[in-house]
Parts: sequence; structure tokens; C-alpha cells
Amino acid sequence: MSEPTSTRTSYDTSQRRSDELWEKIQKDPSGLRMLTGDRPTGALHIGHYFGSLRNRVRLQDVGIETWVLVADYQVITDREVIGDIRGSVRELLTDYLAVGLDPERSTFFAHSAVPALNQLMLPFLSLVTQPELERNPTVKAELAAAGKSAMGGLLLTYPVHQAADILFCGGNVVPVGRDQLPHIEQTRVIARRFNERYADGDQVFIEPDALLSEAPTILGLDGEHKMSKSRGNTVMLRMDETETAKKIKKAKTDSERVITYDPENRPEVANLLTIAAQCLDRTPESIAEEIGDKGSGTLKVMTAEVLNEHLAPIRARRHELEQDPEYLFSVLRAGNERANEVADATLARVREVMGMVY
Amino acid sequence: MSEPTSTRTSYDTSQRRSDELWEKIQKDPSGLRMLTGDRPTGALHIGHYFGSLRNRVRLQDVGIETWVLVADYQVITDREVIGDIRGSVRELLTDYLAVGLDPERSTFFAHSAVPALNQLMLPFLSLVTQPELERNPTVKAELAAAGKSAMGGLLLTYPVHQAADILFCGGNVVPVGRDQLPHIEQTRVIARRFNERYADGDQVFIEPDALLSEAPTILGLDGEHKMSKSRGNTVMLRMDETETAKKIKKAKTDSERVITYDPENRPEVANLLTIAAQCLDRTPESIAEEIGDKGSGTLKVMTAEVLNEHLAPIRARRHELEQDPEYLFSVLRAGNERANEVADATLARVREVMGMVY
Repeated sequence: MSEPTSTRTSYDTSQRRSDELWEKIQKDPSGLRMLTGDRPTGALHIGHYFGSLRNRVRLQDVGIETWVLVADYQVITDREVIGDIRGSVRELLTDYLAVGLDPERSTFFAHSAVPALNQLMLPFLSLVTQPELERNPTVKAELAAAGKSAMGGLLLTYPVHQAADILFCGGNVVPVGRDQLPHIEQTRVIARRFNERYADGDQVFIEPDALLSEAPTILGLDGEHKMSKSRGNTVMLRMDETETAKKIKKAKTDSERVITYDPENRPEVANLLTIAAQCLDRTPESIAEEIGDKGSGTLKVMTAEVLNEHLAPIRARRHELEQDPEYLFSVLRAGNERANEVADATLARVREVMGMVY
Repeated sequence: MSEPTSTRTSYDTSQRRSDELWEKIQKDPSGLRMLTGDRPTGALHIGHYFGSLRNRVRLQDVGIETWVLVADYQVITDREVIGDIRGSVRELLTDYLAVGLDPERSTFFAHSAVPALNQLMLPFLSLVTQPELERNPTVKAELAAAGKSAMGGLLLTYPVHQAADILFCGGNVVPVGRDQLPHIEQTRVIARRFNERYADGDQVFIEPDALLSEAPTILGLDGEHKMSKSRGNTVMLRMDETETAKKIKKAKTDSERVITYDPENRPEVANLLTIAAQCLDRTPESIAEEIGDKGSGTLKVMTAEVLNEHLAPIRARRHELEQDPEYLFSVLRAGNERANEVADATLARVREVMGMVY
């Protein structure tokens, strides 16, 4: 690992703040507000579920106020075709509710439906420089992943948009992976500068903390990449049991009969063990030991079985939800309404401190 | 003049379209909608008036639907201090109404008050690349003028914001100086790309035309720069007659007794002749001839006199308006309301064609 010292220091600081936040969550989650969300590009897979969704549900369930963003404008940051976005949003909402995000306790809203949130982009853009925007490593990585040469204006500025997402609702808990830390840092900088430059130091915006999770990254079943729908190496939440078993059966493993948990040298086997461990709330090592020399065939059968078992109630709920798309959209509309109320109030305060009340 | 061919060609095309537009305005201005406006940085001077405001009033008066933007977010594109923005907006409105922009026929609105307009930034940003934003010569010039090294995010993206200003209300006439042509071109590109990429070619947005005016650029009274409040080389619309005469008396000229109109070699004298000519609706040459060998003292006395005479009704109206700031803000609020209605309708259409209706 040869990271620049400043990045390491900043990571250590984020980790320390994240640890303190976990402590606070365990002791007393009152006053905490989580902002989380996804780009609506279709239905979700078990990589999303074990890597992130499940964690959000747990945080919601301990009583943290939860805001879930359907980041529809982010769909066009790196692609020119929107596709059936309404369908993608519907799939996303179905998965959200199926895994246990609860409209009674969580607010679901879409970027495109909250003008006052989007307006915050304007004053926030005045607080960052082009070099700062260009330096963001996550934005650079996304540009590379999209296979484009020229950075789009929306991709370049999207950390500023994300700052608006987090700050408009006073989000102070943002569960992210380590790769998202530069965005959170950008949001903190924007909050700080806004307060200093435009609000005489009043704490109009709170600097949010990243909540780094212990959740695993699930590899694709080809063992080579992150799980990703476009590579066909996933188990989707919406699949049925037979399809799931078939997918797991075709997963890449190795020819070593004795099963061990060795992510470094046997990533494919370790990945299946991780999935099974997540389903059973056990360690992957204990599962490896249990299987012993029965080989990867046995591991696959077992993984498919416990995965199907674990997902059964989610899938049953999903099936129900699918029957009533109108209900799903009504949940989104109610959330949009609430988000608009909060965003309008935030924008009113922003206008006031900036002297733009006429 | 050594401009690249493409710039010349593009300028020629803009000039041709502008000529056609002038023709249409003379024949039948129905269906035309003008978008114009200013950064609210305080009261206006005769450079603004002769160079731009007067032209706008004429266009309004021939029956072109007129939208006047108080671009308050633009105040923070290149400075960190907002200052008394409400006071600046009040001064701007006072000057607008004093010169003859008429709330019955023109809609006045502020950036910060129209969230749906600002939201258009998001889809529009997806239609431009960072290199395109960086290439904009006007943005580069403004960065240099602000004396900063790092480009701010709001300055970099402001041509996209300006596209939103023009396109949200279907503005198809934008009176600008030649230096603003790159912005209009950027707006045309955004309109075209939006229609192609997100609306299957439907003409959701109309490509606006620049209306290049014949109005003169008034130099500062120091003869060296554009008229600019911060250099103290101006006559403000709000000044009284004595102050105006004093300012003109102190204007830089030269020692040649015979007055001639020679902008190249005698810019200071030519500038006073231009001001007088504007007031009298005569040519500067005929005024020069009239003064003959009576020298610049006589020219100054005459310029001050005709300027004061020309501005007298404007100043009287200005004085009245100053007594009632509440009225001025009520005009802005009514305009904001109308702008919000139009922007909401435009955004609804944008959401619809993009499939973001949930």
C-alpha cells in the first residue's frame, strides 16, 4: 500500500470518526439522520444486499432517521441513454421495501422531484474550485470505468450535488465504502466553507460523518470482478430458488477438495463462503471447517440452500410488492413531498443567511 | 484581427442571424421573447444605459415579450463576499423601472427565487463536457479579470446556468455584445443536444438567437477603460445634475482645440461626442463639426448639458421610485411568481420527456 501520507491521515481520521459514530449508534442513536441511496439502474443483487442494503436496514431498525435517495440524475452522469428509468425506479423501490426499508420510518425521494435541493448546487458550486473537482479520485475512476475520454459536466460536479443531497436534510450519518470517502470529505468542506463564508460562522450545515461498514464486498460469481448486473455474474434478489441454485452451481471455484477460507489465494471459494456466512451469521472459517474435504460441489449446494433460505421472506415480500406498483410509487411520492418540505425550509434558510430575501 | 477561422465563421453566422432577427422585429415581433438581465452589484451608470438598457426598453416598446433576470447567484461566481445584495437588487430595480422597463410588460425575476429553473442545471450539465466548459473564452476572461488563479465551480459552469435562464422561458431573443456570443452558442448546443438525446428530436427547447446591437460602448471618463463603478470613472444614473457636470468636467480629453470624431486617435474626445450624440439622437461627427475649434471645454459643457437634459425624466422617475422600495420588491415578487409558474411547467415537460415521472 503506497498511499500519500495525507490520504492515509485523512483515512485514519475518517475511520476514527466512524468508530466513534458506531459507538454513539449503539449507545443512543437519537439525533442521527442517515442519508443513503442508489442510482436507479434496475433491480438489485446480493452484492448490494450484503454489502450495503442490509446494513441500512439495521441502522433504520435501531432508530436512526433514514433518508433514501433515488439518484435519478446520476444515471446520466456517465451514459447518454436514460433507458426505462421509471421501470428501474420501480425495481429499486421493490427491492428497498422487500429487504425491510420501511416507508413508515424511512423517506424515499428522487433527485428530479426536489427542486430546492437541486438549487443548493448553485451556492455550493461557488465554494469549490475546478482543481478540487478534478482531484476527486472517485470521479476519475468513474470516468475511466465509463470508458470516456472527456469528463462530462454532470460527472465533474456530482460530488457537489451529493453534498446537496446530504446537507439539505441535515444528514449526519452517511454509510459508505472507503472509495466514497473523498465525496464525504468534499461535503464536509462545502458545509464548513458555507458556514464561514455566507453564514458568519453560524452552523447552517452540519459536517456529516462517513460510517464505514464492516459489510463485505461480494465478488462476481466469475470470481474476478465486483458483482455487477452487466457482467451477468450476479444473483439478483428477484431471482427464484432454481435460478439461484443454477447460478451458484455455475460459479467459478477451484479443484482443491479441501475447502479453506483464503481470500488472497482462493478468492472464488472465499466468496461463496462469505455469502453463506452472511446468510447464517457465522464466520466463513467455521463454514469452511464444516465442509472440510467435501469439495466445492458441496460448498455450492450448501451456499445455494442457505442463500435461498435467507432470501425467502425477502422474495415473498418482493413478489407481493410487484403486484402493486402504484403503491410503490405512492411511497415515493409521499417521500418526495416530505423531502420538498425539508428542502424548501433549508433553501429558505440559505436565502436568508445569504441576504437573498426580496 | 487574427481570429481563428472557425470563430470568424461562427461570428459571421451569428451576425447574419442577428440581422434577420432585427428584420423580423421591425416587421412583426409577435412570438419573440427576450431574455436579458444583470448581476446585481449596485446602481447602474450611463455605460449600462447607452450600451444596453436603452436598447432593451426599445425592444420592449415594440412589443417583444420581455424577461429581465436579476442574476443574484452570479454575484458569487468571482467574489467571496456577497455584500448588501438586497440593497444592490433594490438599486438595480430602481434603475430598470426608471429607464422605462415596465412591470406591466416585463417580468423581473431573481435566480435565487426560481428553483425549477436552477434544477435545469442538472440535465444540462450532462450535455456538456469539461473541455467545452474550459474553452469558453468569456469565462476565461472573467477569471483573469477577477485576478484569481483557480477557476471556481460556479464560474466554470455559469454558461450552463445561463442556458437554463434563456431556455426555461423559451427566450429566443438575447441582446448581447459580441463578447457574449460564446454563451449563446453554448445555449444553442445545449438546446440541440437536449432535444436529440432526451426528447427524441422533439423541440422541447428552442435555439435562441443573439441580437447584436448597434449600441456603443461608453468608455470610462478616464478615457482608458470601459466605464466601471469600481474605477470611479462613471456617471451614475442616480447622480444629480451638478455631480454629473462635475464628472464630465473632470473627464480626460486632449489639448487639440479643433474637435473631431476620431475614436482611434482621440478616444476621450470621441467618447464625449458619443455620449452627446446618444442624448441628441445625432451623429458624433455632426456634433464635432458644430463645436469646431471651441475646444474640449465647450464640448464638456455641452455634453453635460444634453446628458442632464436627457436623463432628467429618468432621474425624476428614479427619485419617485426610491421613496417606495416596497413597491420595487413587490414588482420582483410578482415576477418571481410568474417565472416560477413558467419554470415549473418547463421542468414538468423536461421530467416527462426524460421519463422521470413517478
